[in-house]
Amino acid sequence: MSNFTHFAEHVGARPDKVYKSTLFESGRLLLGLNCLEPGQAQAPHTHDGQDKFYFVIEGEGDFLVGDEAQHAGPGSVVCAPAGVEHGVKNTAGTRLVLLVGIAPWR
Amino acid sequence: MSNFTHFAEHVGARPDKVYKSTLFESGRLLLGLNCLEPGQAQAPHTHDGQDKFYFVIEGEGDFLVGDEAQHAGPGSVVCAPAGVEHGVKNTAGTRLVLLVGIAPWR
Repeated sequence: MSNFTHFAEHVGARPDKVYKSTLFESGRLLLGLNCLEPGQAQAPHTHDGQDKFYFVIEGEGDFLVGDEAQHAGPGSVVCAPAGVEHGVKNTAGTRLVLLVGIAPWR
Repeated sequence: MSNFTHFAEHVGARPDKVYKSTLFESGRLLLGLNCLEPGQAQAPHTHDGQDKFYFVIEGEGDFLVGDEAQHAGPGSVVCAPAGVEHGVKNTAGTRLVLLVGIAPWR
């Protein structure tokens, strides 16, 4: 795997659930893309011992982190520290493309 | 610190070196912004035991990772695994804004 790529090469869609693509993976870090079609959601969940962030590349979504809920668009950064419940729903009319990092990974 | 922010709130410039801003920090992950004015560079260096990625938000730069050198613009993802030398120079005429993650941190 090259150390260089472009997010657009990894965008995709699944009718049944969030589309996920891996950009980089090690025991220290997972970097990937999550793509949500309009109406799709990632149910609130928690990662024990793992921090996670979302960076909104394209589209808009309703994010939940702990007891904070915010609508966020391109350029927004959303962080979910280990053990804090988080989720996202695409409430807009276009695809939501998120750069996602999780550390540590496995 | 809120779990929500926008990269534009953290952009800045220093005349003498790369401008760095922290978005999220734990023992597992550092997520930050690196801003390079035209002509500024981050000299090739290595992080032992830490993976690093750059996501180009705005501008363009010449990146080096190991023996790979590439010019990369908005939407590009550049990964530098632990122990692999990496650096970047802003060779364009506008500010280069990078989302940067390092894991683990500290």
